[in-house]
Amino acid sequence: MSKQHFLHEFLNPQSVAFYGANNKGNSLAAIQIMNLIKSGFDGGIYPIHLTLESVMGYKAYKNITNIPEIPDLVITVLSAKIIPQIFRECGEKGVKKIIVISGGFRELVGDRKNTLTEEIKEIANHYGIRFIGPNCLGIFNNWYGLREENKAFNIAIWEILKKGNFSIASQSGTLSSHIWFDSENLDLGLSKSISVGNEANIDVVDCLEYYKDDDDTKVIGLYVEELKRGKKFLELAKEITPKKPIIIIYVGGSEAGNRALKSHTGSLAGDAKIYEAVFKETGMIKTDYVQEFLDIALILSRGILPKGKRLGIITNSGGPGAMVANNAERKGLKVPEFSDTLQRQLKEILPTNASYKNPVDCAFDTNLSYFYINLPEILMKSGEIDAIIQYGVVGFQDVMDDYLQNAKIAENADFTHQPDEVMDGLANTLLKPTLENSKKYSIPILYINPMRFTSPWSKRLRKNGAILFKLWDRPVNALAKVCEYVEFKKRFELSTNL
Amino acid sequence: MSKQHFLHEFLNPQSVAFYGANNKGNSLAAIQIMNLIKSGFDGGIYPIHLTLESVMGYKAYKNITNIPEIPDLVITVLSAKIIPQIFRECGEKGVKKIIVISGGFRELVGDRKNTLTEEIKEIANHYGIRFIGPNCLGIFNNWYGLREENKAFNIAIWEILKKGNFSIASQSGTLSSHIWFDSENLDLGLSKSISVGNEANIDVVDCLEYYKDDDDTKVIGLYVEELKRGKKFLELAKEITPKKPIIIIYVGGSEAGNRALKSHTGSLAGDAKIYEAVFKETGMIKTDYVQEFLDIALILSRGILPKGKRLGIITNSGGPGAMVANNAERKGLKVPEFSDTLQRQLKEILPTNASYKNPVDCAFDTNLSYFYINLPEILMKSGEIDAIIQYGVVGFQDVMDDYLQNAKIAENADFTHQPDEVMDGLANTLLKPTLENSKKYSIPILYINPMRFTSPWSKRLRKNGAILFKLWDRPVNALAKVCEYVEFKKRFELSTNL
Repeated sequence: MSKQHFLHEFLNPQSVAFYGANNKGNSLAAIQIMNLIKSGFDGGIYPIHLTLESVMGYKAYKNITNIPEIPDLVITVLSAKIIPQIFRECGEKGVKKIIVISGGFRELVGDRKNTLTEEIKEIANHYGIRFIGPNCLGIFNNWYGLREENKAFNIAIWEILKKGNFSIASQSGTLSSHIWFDSENLDLGLSKSISVGNEANIDVVDCLEYYKDDDDTKVIGLYVEELKRGKKFLELAKEITPKKPIIIIYVGGSEAGNRALKSHTGSLAGDAKIYEAVFKETGMIKTDYVQEFLDIALILSRGILPKGKRLGIITNSGGPGAMVANNAERKGLKVPEFSDTLQRQLKEILPTNASYKNPVDCAFDTNLSYFYINLPEILMKSGEIDAIIQYGVVGFQDVMDDYLQNAKIAENADFTHQPDEVMDGLANTLLKPTLENSKKYSIPILYINPMRFTSPWSKRLRKNGAILFKLWDRPVNALAKVCEYVEFKKRFELSTNL
Repeated sequence: MSKQHFLHEFLNPQSVAFYGANNKGNSLAAIQIMNLIKSGFDGGIYPIHLTLESVMGYKAYKNITNIPEIPDLVITVLSAKIIPQIFRECGEKGVKKIIVISGGFRELVGDRKNTLTEEIKEIANHYGIRFIGPNCLGIFNNWYGLREENKAFNIAIWEILKKGNFSIASQSGTLSSHIWFDSENLDLGLSKSISVGNEANIDVVDCLEYYKDDDDTKVIGLYVEELKRGKKFLELAKEITPKKPIIIIYVGGSEAGNRALKSHTGSLAGDAKIYEAVFKETGMIKTDYVQEFLDIALILSRGILPKGKRLGIITNSGGPGAMVANNAERKGLKVPEFSDTLQRQLKEILPTNASYKNPVDCAFDTNLSYFYINLPEILMKSGEIDAIIQYGVVGFQDVMDDYLQNAKIAENADFTHQPDEVMDGLANTLLKPTLENSKKYSIPILYINPMRFTSPWSKRLRKNGAILFKLWDRPVNALAKVCEYVEFKKRFELSTNL
């Protein structure tokens, strides 16, 4: 059970002490405390500072010995050279978990034997301390405390994020934290995120082990530069991927990439091609793009997996339909021509200048309920497709609202602005049956509205559960990777049943 | 000269008549008139309607004969079968230019010989009429009227767009219009956009001819499904690409893509591989992605071309630096290890735990003027790189402003919010010398801020001329294509000088 895993304690502490905390908004430890406050953490917060009386409203302590309890977790941003001393103090106090944000352990000494890292490892072993880092950005748990309390334990991310089932373990702090800054434009919900840094004591393998049995983790995302326990990593991955998808960014293989890594973590990444082959065999979903990493996670986190790779395309514009079809085939998806029966069915409800072979092109004048409900339903029931991409879910009222800001137009146009409740109701009415069918038939549907992702109609679609994109490149690419994973699962299940 | 070209007249009419116009906000012709009003057009607007007295505030006419002048341009959205009649009426009136938005000409009849299209072609020939369409979405000219008037001639795009030097000719209306809906998130300025539809009379070759000599067009974007005048197209492209880059989306070659096209335009696209080879030889920049189409255009439209493909990477986070390096090499860019001299120079101003081989990783604590000014300057002056990608231009005040919305944090954090003028000044101070150097050395620099693209600091950077991205995949991919174009230009100049 994941609750017995030591990482569970890291992610669910009742009290935290901070070395290096002060009141300056732009200091790293202050940001961590601010994140903690913002996320609703109401356990013990103990800033440690030599001179300050209080930090961010909390009583400050000169050293860890003075703190009235043994903190469940200690976090330090202080410079590398005094970390051994901090570890000893913590060990004496009885602290068992530390996060070392501080960098400059390996970076400082380049390729030479790293005595500083070895030193803190030894101290940790001596006192039975587990620690994350050094050179990491902290951890995040969106499922902290009781469900109904709606709290998080967060020292790593500046934004309040949607709760979800996607969990990250990353050797880059940016990939575990900073890609989450733009929450307004992100529908992907986060479960946990762990920045493992240089992995002196805890590594991505530990995280995988934890996520494997964590009920709040259904999809796993990894950013990996080097694998210290490669064999164990692959064994675990093989165990996990038939049940939970793993999306992996692996950086290495290029000369400059390796040079970057060497400076960054002191490691040298292995041959990219070998890794790629191994990842594929293991069923991991590899991507080289951070946007795709998020897109794949978004689709997978909804829990509706296609059964195959046959794509149905619904569009009200020929160009995007053709581009989606073209790109889909290039990426290994199938865009089958529909059977005569299905074509006849579609023809009945479509305008005369529409096309219905796949892509289904409504030629911009189908009514809304046909476009949002009937067409997807017919495709889903047909048994001829495994996923749908639908272009053109435009918010017409949003367009009109823009126009009506012009006095001359407002005076003359015959247009009734519908109140928010009506529009909310409309979005729900149009999406609900389709999303239910999507679940029932296990056929994911991805929508595209070329207007602003935060436009009122787009927001309504997103709020009502649509997986929405602004343009049509990303959904195709992400879906293709999801379908590769589905193919892996099929092969796996076949071989298990043999 | 482009002013003599007949398309110049299409894009600069003094009077326009609309068949099919009414007051309903959601009718196509009303949208066109609204676009016209919004864009500041103050010429004659003549709605034609059998019963209405006025349309959108303009006196309506029962037919074109009653209109008191010969309109420079006639636009019709009425159904295909009455277009021949409209053409005859227009011909008799003396109209010479028509845009046929109406679809259903070829779509309607499938593969059979299209008598309706032939009929309107004949009528047009008889009266000396040139027409765009059928089945198009209209045209856009951001440089209409006098420069100081700040007007546009626009019947195609819902938004008011930045003026620019990028011009589009497209066989898909979506690619000429709807990709421009989200102007808030788009820094690319548009010059002209022509939706050519089914090309019964005017095609992309005509547009290329016009853009070739148009002073307001420096970068050309094409969306092509079929080439009716392939030879002429390639001849023209060859003439243009050494002077003005052409970015082309060519959809075809896949089975489903062709099926989509056949339904959409009635044409069958040629073999994708042959076309790709020909496009490459001609120096056109081919992309399969609409986002990349816009990204490449954005970089090129700034007019600063790299001289080669050596990329310098500046970052304050290892992960993005490594991913950029990795992706850059995969896409054909070089990420050279810096010379000892350059490394020494960088080492002098960087913190001890930074790295400076390329990527330059500032490890998150370099001061702003070093990060924005000195580092790029050193790289640009070094002669060792041709372009720069800089990750991490974060707006710290934006982060703090978010935190300070929490009462507890606001009470305790020691942070001075700087007024807008100060922040505007800061953005200008930090960017100006670098953008001047960028121009001086002809070294483009692409910035990345992982926060919201419309966050205050991102907006300030954009307003002050930064080419900004939110994540790091797109700038690498787009830059790689730009560098391929540069290589073509070099080869071309070499062969010309031989």
